Amino acid sequence: MESVTLNVTGMTCGHCVKAVEGSVGELKGVDKVAVDLANGQVKVNYDSSAVSLKDIKETIDDQGYDVN
Amino acid sequence: MESVTLNVTGMTCGHCVKAVEGSVGELKGVDKVAVDLANGQVKVNYDSSAVSLKDIKETIDDQGYDVN
Repeated sequence: MESVTLNVTGMTCGHCVKAVEGSVGELKGVDKVAVDLANGQVKVNYDSSAVSLKDIKETIDDQGYDVN
Repeated sequence: MESVTLNVTGMTCGHCVKAVEGSVGELKGVDKVAVDLANGQVKVNYDSSAVSLKDIKETIDDQGYDVN
């Protein structure tokens, strides 16, 4: 299991938190996802043999947010 | 038909727009609702014989926003 903290811009409210946590959390291989709204960060624990960091980033991007 | 423009704080993104427009738009007696996100305003056209301004304000409040 690996852990990554991504800097994500554009998340502003509880709906955004749900959109990111919900979509990333549904990915096979993702164990835990937590949004820190105040700091614009998304922390993800995942199994890199089941899901790639690229897929995680694309999922966040698909929700309309920029991953830096 | 009457028209009112409410000042609403806490709306920050497209999800918020949908939450307010969706919930207010579902009220019987509401003809049109439009959120101006940049200015924090919600414009509502409604039939005051079918829905009260109080109900409209409470619906927005129930979505987690402050009507001033």
